[in-house]
Amino acid sequence: MSIFSIDETHDPQRQSWVESANGHSEFPIQNLPFGIAARAGQQPRPAVAIGDHVLDLAAIADLLPPQTHDALQAGDLNALFALDEAVRRALRQALSRLLSDPAHRARIEPALCPMADCTLHLPFTIGDYTDFYVGIHHATNVGKLFRPDNPLLPNYKHVPIGYHGRASSIRPSDVDVLRPRGQRKLPDAPGPIFGPTARLDYELELGVWIGQGNALGQPIPIGEAAAHIAGFCLLNDWSARDFQAWEYQPLGPFLAKNFHSTISPWVVTAEALAPFRIAQPPRPEGDPAPLPYLWDDKDQSAGQFSLALEVAIRTRTMREEGTPAAALSASNASDMYWTVAQLVAHHSSNGCDLRTGDLLGSGTISGATRDAFGSLLELTQGGAEPITLPNGEKRSFVEDGDEIILTAHAHRDGFASIGFGQNRATILPAIA
Amino acid sequence: MSIFSIDETHDPQRQSWVESANGHSEFPIQNLPFGIAARAGQQPRPAVAIGDHVLDLAAIADLLPPQTHDALQAGDLNALFALDEAVRRALRQALSRLLSDPAHRARIEPALCPMADCTLHLPFTIGDYTDFYVGIHHATNVGKLFRPDNPLLPNYKHVPIGYHGRASSIRPSDVDVLRPRGQRKLPDAPGPIFGPTARLDYELELGVWIGQGNALGQPIPIGEAAAHIAGFCLLNDWSARDFQAWEYQPLGPFLAKNFHSTISPWVVTAEALAPFRIAQPPRPEGDPAPLPYLWDDKDQSAGQFSLALEVAIRTRTMREEGTPAAALSASNASDMYWTVAQLVAHHSSNGCDLRTGDLLGSGTISGATRDAFGSLLELTQGGAEPITLPNGEKRSFVEDGDEIILTAHAHRDGFASIGFGQNRATILPAIA
Repeated sequence: MSIFSIDETHDPQRQSWVESANGHSEFPIQNLPFGIAARAGQQPRPAVAIGDHVLDLAAIADLLPPQTHDALQAGDLNALFALDEAVRRALRQALSRLLSDPAHRARIEPALCPMADCTLHLPFTIGDYTDFYVGIHHATNVGKLFRPDNPLLPNYKHVPIGYHGRASSIRPSDVDVLRPRGQRKLPDAPGPIFGPTARLDYELELGVWIGQGNALGQPIPIGEAAAHIAGFCLLNDWSARDFQAWEYQPLGPFLAKNFHSTISPWVVTAEALAPFRIAQPPRPEGDPAPLPYLWDDKDQSAGQFSLALEVAIRTRTMREEGTPAAALSASNASDMYWTVAQLVAHHSSNGCDLRTGDLLGSGTISGATRDAFGSLLELTQGGAEPITLPNGEKRSFVEDGDEIILTAHAHRDGFASIGFGQNRATILPAIA
Repeated sequence: MSIFSIDETHDPQRQSWVESANGHSEFPIQNLPFGIAARAGQQPRPAVAIGDHVLDLAAIADLLPPQTHDALQAGDLNALFALDEAVRRALRQALSRLLSDPAHRARIEPALCPMADCTLHLPFTIGDYTDFYVGIHHATNVGKLFRPDNPLLPNYKHVPIGYHGRASSIRPSDVDVLRPRGQRKLPDAPGPIFGPTARLDYELELGVWIGQGNALGQPIPIGEAAAHIAGFCLLNDWSARDFQAWEYQPLGPFLAKNFHSTISPWVVTAEALAPFRIAQPPRPEGDPAPLPYLWDDKDQSAGQFSLALEVAIRTRTMREEGTPAAALSASNASDMYWTVAQLVAHHSSNGCDLRTGDLLGSGTISGATRDAFGSLLELTQGGAEPITLPNGEKRSFVEDGDEIILTAHAHRDGFASIGFGQNRATILPAIA
């Protein structure tokens, strides 16, 4: 048994006595994502989402595996996901049982709170945040804007390209984003100016939470890498494209990216996603084989995830008119050139130590076609071809008052569908 | 009064009753750097260096300002340096008095421990680590290796270039460094190979510790930036040049830098360095004026630090022969194109939140001439011109068994000289 085994917690017939979890919820009993939630006036504590409710785990700790008790008193999930795989499985199984068997309802129900009445915090204290660049269609699209004939650099198909991001400015869903100010240089200007970004963009990314870490100097072998992954979230890597173009040579993006990043607050566990693992598609003819430290047969056969990803926008006008959000694009997490296990193995291959609660971003995940492009930079061809929204509004980049909403859903015949919950945030004008 | 005022704690006539602090110590009573130290078998606690001893601050907390008491019980300095400037000044003044007035000797002496009997830990829990690139001679030297006629990119003199580094793999002095393994591509090879780096290098950098932080979205104005700096250390940004050349396009250095970084363990405070502040030299004729958000008259007149920096090497052969370390280069912290206040103002100009204990690296600080180059990449012209050590050994890059030692000293007529202590680490062979 491993965290990737399909077991009774995935049984599609299992239902919860929390009625809202049954039917079309993103959080049926087969999901059970973890988060940090606070009722009004209370301290943030570990919780699980079930239907439209949040279960306070500290309040029912006596019914859960004893090894988890200390971790359930914390204000983050770091201690919980530093526990052994077997404990994590036992916790999931206990929660599935407690929330499905009506015999437990009277004891558990007082620990439930409507999600709408809770504040969801960052699930982990994030030590380090690394952003990769493994959405090959995105890398190709962005590369084409600079090098039409040669969009991918020579290292791209050998190295899972990544860079360090900023941990401090990561915020959960529903925290507004201030339009950043910064240096940018207009193409024909003699020098840069300082002011609000004129090219604010979103990036649709899969976030990967690290579970157990590794000691400095001790790489995680590819065959063990997946077991170090606690779970997943949606990541919006907000980007100021004008700052980025001016600052990024030679050391990479910096202030263009570190003013704010938004994550969805629920940690959808590797266990919950076990039924949705799929094979890594074969590399196109002519692509190089990965070096041995990045190759594992088992990872190739079940190292990708079938996750439908979507981006939507709700402008200020849409809110005023009561119009629903408009879809911008839809892609799939399987459009990654490298698996998440390959990212973990590569990151630690030089001995770099990963720690519980570290966040890895996939990089923007775009599909091959225009309706699957995961950023406005790609959708508008660098701003040259504005898109028209259903209500007639046009967008080259994100404007003040726009709300950007990322969602993810996993579907497979014979299994209950699960969702990630929303990653959404609204842009506020730059400070004066 | 501010943390930059010269006061009685800088009086060169003041002596300590800790005799080793007087004379030629790096840690006279005018220095009083903070650190986290542990005696054998005890928990790491806040401490101050005095001569060749370490003073356990928790043990004498009743003699120190009450606002510091909670912070002095912690295992890092984060809470202490999050306190207001006035409290920091009061603490320094109290320590200077207690360690100089013999009336306190009987009470204080039991809280002293020989530094040689203590383990020095990381002084802060480091939230984020940012590395800048403001040593203009270094940037020019490295740029020349790639672009002989045009070494500095167009943004260099407008933007304090920086990127995010890895916080998890930072270690204090005296922790050995494993030679990292990784991908590199030899110039004429068809593809990359994986193995130990063949071009391991050091980088001589000034480290800047952030004191009080800023809220997300609220930039730190240049005029207030210096007050957010807790103190300084020496930073060796170990680099695998072959990994770096292969991986760094388009998002910057990653595994070439994040396998291990070494810092000196003592936080030399902004207060201690007050006498050694000097004017930023005027920009060379023709260089652009900084944008207003990076300009402050007071910072220009006293925003640089006169700090003599040195790099030395002690090879395995030197240790076996009992030869002392050999000097490799000497430069000065004033060889920075931007002041540390400009780094802080730039970093937060887009609203990015800095937190107490964040570390900023200056980037390699080289001087204008060969004897002042702060990395082997520069000293050996990319490895093409090996250097010869006094005992006849040659080096293109760092070899297994080599110990690299960084030191820094501040001198000014009429003031006591102070030092940073050593930043040293030895290279161990790569794991099999």
